[in-house]
Amino acid sequence: MSTKNESYLVGLIGEGITPSLTPPMHEAEAEHHRLRYLYRPIDLTAIERRGSDVGELLRAAHDMGYNALNITHPCKQLVLEHLDGLTADARALGAVNTVLISDGEFIGHNTDGTGFAQALRTGLPGVPLERVLQIGVGGAGAAVAHALLGAGVRHLVLVDLDPARVAERVAALSAAFPGSTISAATPAGIPAELAAANGLVNATPIGMYQHRGSPIDVSLLDPGHWVADVVYRPVDTELIVAARAAGCRTLDGGHMAVGQAVDAFRLITGLEPDAQRMRSHFLSMLERGL
Amino acid sequence: MSTKNESYLVGLIGEGITPSLTPPMHEAEAEHHRLRYLYRPIDLTAIERRGSDVGELLRAAHDMGYNALNITHPCKQLVLEHLDGLTADARALGAVNTVLISDGEFIGHNTDGTGFAQALRTGLPGVPLERVLQIGVGGAGAAVAHALLGAGVRHLVLVDLDPARVAERVAALSAAFPGSTISAATPAGIPAELAAANGLVNATPIGMYQHRGSPIDVSLLDPGHWVADVVYRPVDTELIVAARAAGCRTLDGGHMAVGQAVDAFRLITGLEPDAQRMRSHFLSMLERGL
Repeated sequence: MSTKNESYLVGLIGEGITPSLTPPMHEAEAEHHRLRYLYRPIDLTAIERRGSDVGELLRAAHDMGYNALNITHPCKQLVLEHLDGLTADARALGAVNTVLISDGEFIGHNTDGTGFAQALRTGLPGVPLERVLQIGVGGAGAAVAHALLGAGVRHLVLVDLDPARVAERVAALSAAFPGSTISAATPAGIPAELAAANGLVNATPIGMYQHRGSPIDVSLLDPGHWVADVVYRPVDTELIVAARAAGCRTLDGGHMAVGQAVDAFRLITGLEPDAQRMRSHFLSMLERGL
Repeated sequence: MSTKNESYLVGLIGEGITPSLTPPMHEAEAEHHRLRYLYRPIDLTAIERRGSDVGELLRAAHDMGYNALNITHPCKQLVLEHLDGLTADARALGAVNTVLISDGEFIGHNTDGTGFAQALRTGLPGVPLERVLQIGVGGAGAAVAHALLGAGVRHLVLVDLDPARVAERVAALSAAFPGSTISAATPAGIPAELAAANGLVNATPIGMYQHRGSPIDVSLLDPGHWVADVVYRPVDTELIVAARAAGCRTLDGGHMAVGQAVDAFRLITGLEPDAQRMRSHFLSMLERGL
């Protein structure tokens, strides 16, 4: 095991996260690096805590010898006021999904955006980024939009059922990326927008086991589109299956799930994880029904 | 690593325990069993907590996914009121050094006594137990006296600088072991008591690096005595060195330190640790100045 006598204690704070595949992804990768590495789910539902208790849980994690935490719903924003510092990415997104604990200080990072960017780079290399249509601008959507613009998208069109949320996101992203165009569209505008776009990204929960279906009419897809999904249970969503059948290049949601873990593992350990190995392990867990 | 997909998160709560060898003892043994096992020191001094915070720390350990805790000074008694259950040993000693956390319940155990008993059995097999003189009846001393009587000592003579503490201990042990005789002696009575005893046990801190010296005049030792010490830094105390030179059979303090860890490891994992391997590792750490 660890030859450097170093060990890592990491947790994931969120609601209902007991079945998350992030803990076993980290632990398996750490095993390849011969690290003593334990990753515990800290499920708010199981320990009967609320998202607003996240400050207390941060203190508990510090006292109990934790090195780092991943943070997910509903704590990604709630955690902000309890941190001693933020990276530029986390500040821009107004959300944190990774906290490093060192010398009694809590520093917030966000690997959702970098994870998606990495997924896009390695999973869809060279796709055209002139014009992209993104459906959904909630928690994951904000990070995805930021990553798309960071990756060089010239014109990003955002669609959401909540017009106020879209407007707010358009304003924030326009300020952060003055060289790009960010516009809003309504669900009724999707056919026209898709016809004009190079790529489509689903950042809604539609397509999950609990939310079957597709966020768009898949007959609108043609081989000129690339299609990305953030949903990974199942990894082959209706959208991804239909896009593949239509001849599109595709990026399934597992890429982003693995990407955020790859980036978090690197931050926590300072070691370079094997992204392909982590993805293989992730897919094998999904296949085993984990 | 773990093939059963089981993992263990264990901590040691106490004051100034950062240099304790118990965490690496557990982790190394777990490695031989191919368990994912992390043992964190939870040093009250380092996290700026007091012994009276132990209830809050228990709750934090539960929330943070801990499976078990070792408990040491100053929390062995303070922890009692926060537990859901106690083993007979822990109840008899009025002290807990191991807490198992399962299904949200905290159950207190004590492996100080069983650890010393095991040390006595394996390190000094067959020594006469008719009459034993024990110096010191504080925290470790209470567990040692209990173990000696449990091992079959017929007459136990207790010496301590605090007469009230000795009297209290004599009363408690006499009630618990009605078939044995427990009596008190003063420091001035040590020469006569030692002359009448088969064995001598030091349960005071005298002999530690910070408390050099011997608890008795070592010229009183003869080859008919066996001598045990609870001090293990250094493992060769003045008492143990002199006893060995006088031809006595000896049991150094490392045996008890390892014994409590052996018993705690078995309780936590349900697996049989290799006591000899744990002792070898423990001694090698002491030799390396850890």
